[in-house]
Amino acid sequence: MITRDGGPQPADFADVRATNLAVVLRHVRTHSPCSRADIAATTGLNKATVSSLVTDLIDRRLVREVGMTENRIGRPAMMLVLDGSPYAAVGLEINTDYLTAVALDLAGERLLSWRRAFTGTPGQPGQAIASLAALARRAVSKLEREGRQVLGLTVAVPGLVDADGVVELAAGLGWQQVDLRKSLTAALGEPAYPLMVENDANLAVLAEQRLGDSAGVADLVYLTGGASLGAGIICDGRPLRGARGFAGEFGHLPLDPAGPSCTCGRRGCLEAYAGLGALIRQALPDVGIETALSPSEFGPHVDEIHRLAKAGDVQVLAALTDVGRHLGHALSLLTNLINPACVALGGYFTVLSPWLIPAATAELESRSVAANCGGTRLVASALDSSAAAAGGATRVLDAIDAGVLPPPRTAAAR
Amino acid sequence: MITRDGGPQPADFADVRATNLAVVLRHVRTHSPCSRADIAATTGLNKATVSSLVTDLIDRRLVREVGMTENRIGRPAMMLVLDGSPYAAVGLEINTDYLTAVALDLAGERLLSWRRAFTGTPGQPGQAIASLAALARRAVSKLEREGRQVLGLTVAVPGLVDADGVVELAAGLGWQQVDLRKSLTAALGEPAYPLMVENDANLAVLAEQRLGDSAGVADLVYLTGGASLGAGIICDGRPLRGARGFAGEFGHLPLDPAGPSCTCGRRGCLEAYAGLGALIRQALPDVGIETALSPSEFGPHVDEIHRLAKAGDVQVLAALTDVGRHLGHALSLLTNLINPACVALGGYFTVLSPWLIPAATAELESRSVAANCGGTRLVASALDSSAAAAGGATRVLDAIDAGVLPPPRTAAAR
Repeated sequence: MITRDGGPQPADFADVRATNLAVVLRHVRTHSPCSRADIAATTGLNKATVSSLVTDLIDRRLVREVGMTENRIGRPAMMLVLDGSPYAAVGLEINTDYLTAVALDLAGERLLSWRRAFTGTPGQPGQAIASLAALARRAVSKLEREGRQVLGLTVAVPGLVDADGVVELAAGLGWQQVDLRKSLTAALGEPAYPLMVENDANLAVLAEQRLGDSAGVADLVYLTGGASLGAGIICDGRPLRGARGFAGEFGHLPLDPAGPSCTCGRRGCLEAYAGLGALIRQALPDVGIETALSPSEFGPHVDEIHRLAKAGDVQVLAALTDVGRHLGHALSLLTNLINPACVALGGYFTVLSPWLIPAATAELESRSVAANCGGTRLVASALDSSAAAAGGATRVLDAIDAGVLPPPRTAAAR
Repeated sequence: MITRDGGPQPADFADVRATNLAVVLRHVRTHSPCSRADIAATTGLNKATVSSLVTDLIDRRLVREVGMTENRIGRPAMMLVLDGSPYAAVGLEINTDYLTAVALDLAGERLLSWRRAFTGTPGQPGQAIASLAALARRAVSKLEREGRQVLGLTVAVPGLVDADGVVELAAGLGWQQVDLRKSLTAALGEPAYPLMVENDANLAVLAEQRLGDSAGVADLVYLTGGASLGAGIICDGRPLRGARGFAGEFGHLPLDPAGPSCTCGRRGCLEAYAGLGALIRQALPDVGIETALSPSEFGPHVDEIHRLAKAGDVQVLAALTDVGRHLGHALSLLTNLINPACVALGGYFTVLSPWLIPAATAELESRSVAANCGGTRLVASALDSSAAAAGGATRVLDAIDAGVLPPPRTAAAR
């Protein structure tokens, strides 16, 4: 594939057949209904190759024929649409105070969306893994009862996750070196579908790009806004995970060596200014610090801050301006280093964005080396708190789009 | 092409034929000599397709046959190697005190490497463009006299360059909004080869990845070390330029709001601590500030600092430790956000790296959220001060590798 800038490619050679299957599948997804001749004309593949690829995709129940059309110039043609009705992609999220599950079909339509309260004991991952496994089993068996095959399951975790699915560090959960992928695979009895574990922000940005208002933006960042803050980054259409999967550690960018102390043990990190705990302490000083740090209490406090901001409460507006300013400062680091086209504010940032975005934009503008923030726009995400779980399901769909396809039906199964 | 992580792809469909030509060409580059059957076996392309693609590459004089081999199992096979002897890729660099030109053949061998002193008047780009054009004409006519066709020319500029080759800002040159690509194209009389303009660090990292010690590292950063500091970034094998081409503004990352004032008008930027001017002022305080700011004087000062450091001069060692510490602080921002596998220190950092790297590594370690600096290694670049120009030529070769091929010879030309 030719990159936007003609830059170097990884040295390994792609499986050209898989690539071409994925090219045809993506064409059908975006141009449905279309004919084999349409696909050949757009992709540059020859017609015989397209026919062979389409047959393969039909065998894999990813594409189906929907009848002839005559509403065209030339001969009537058999039209193709995305099928995928026998499939489902599943995403789970574990956070400090809740678990979520989302399932999508191949077209990105939601098949289920569940949320349940959860308060695990910090440092006791076993309990969390059992709860995640129970939720996964319920979701998978519901989907299987509906006749769907689960193509994959991805778990979103608020922390550093390596390429093997080991959670190196998840401060909010009190986890260190938890091999979540291995433990959950065992708890689910070695399921046939692939099971992946990934940082929550890295997944949420996939959902933002496929399902959100920023669909198709090639250089995109999604910020999780909660007790901890993370950035999911897509550059030139591809997720940026970094060499070990640790990219996007946004919350612990140091802003001021003389700043307030942070939960990570350093001083002046963004999270110490703009994490949800910091906002609550500043906007609602009557709330005790201990209460403000209890995640299960966050939701009502955000609602209260929102209500007071709309009513013009001076203290709350000052707190939001201060948080926005620090957010803009941290965003200037991001903009100077990776120059995204768009930053979508998720989590608690979304609902408070009418106050946060103006303050953040002003600070970003004053600190960006390039004029006009280097073109970076700040927007509120349209996704709700299921963004990371939806991103987990999206990641499974992305693997399909990239050519990791379910096998063809066997003759016996037809 | 399947990405490492199965992430989403840009929605446009690649030209599959061009992709496959590039796949075959890259195979010949890395596995030369090889047979058509070898290529088919490794790439998954069928043999008839490979034969057709190889014929095309031979027609374009990119690949040639070198005779049969019998030193194999099975039938003797016609072996193929990279040709490209009729081609050259050219890179130029303009900096505050010099111009360089580098030409490479298709295999990355150096055909010429020139350096000449240059001191343009700040804010007068016309003079610089005339000098660049003269250098380009000399290089191109030398290559053409040798029977080579120039495939492209890329100019490296220390500043913000947009996707159209407009230099938005190059503080060291005193440039703002200079349409260098257009002006240079006109000055060269609208040449037939493509002419590109790009940030110097973005190009140097391409040379580091293809020609340096970090060849093949998929997540790589190259730091230019001079009066100004920039970062060229490669993520997952591809250059990270950002939405408008402004990524890698490393020198103006703010480290401390109470820090020293910077040439950009802000306070506490990395450059105010670790730019070459800052190092000279700290290590050699007897050198007047005005002298230290004159780029043509930099070379001897770096040599002097190197000599004194080796001799154990206390003041110089303290200055290098301080610069290294600030460099490590800024690198922690880079590591937390993009998690590279390797950071290569270029420019003046290279020769002083024995003192800078230990201090920078200690600081980076203490500030990285992930353990062990998230796996990021700091190394001295093996490239000399022609790195950006070599990167300019490399960019032309990268375009060839990505499928932007020279046209086949016409029948008359054979």
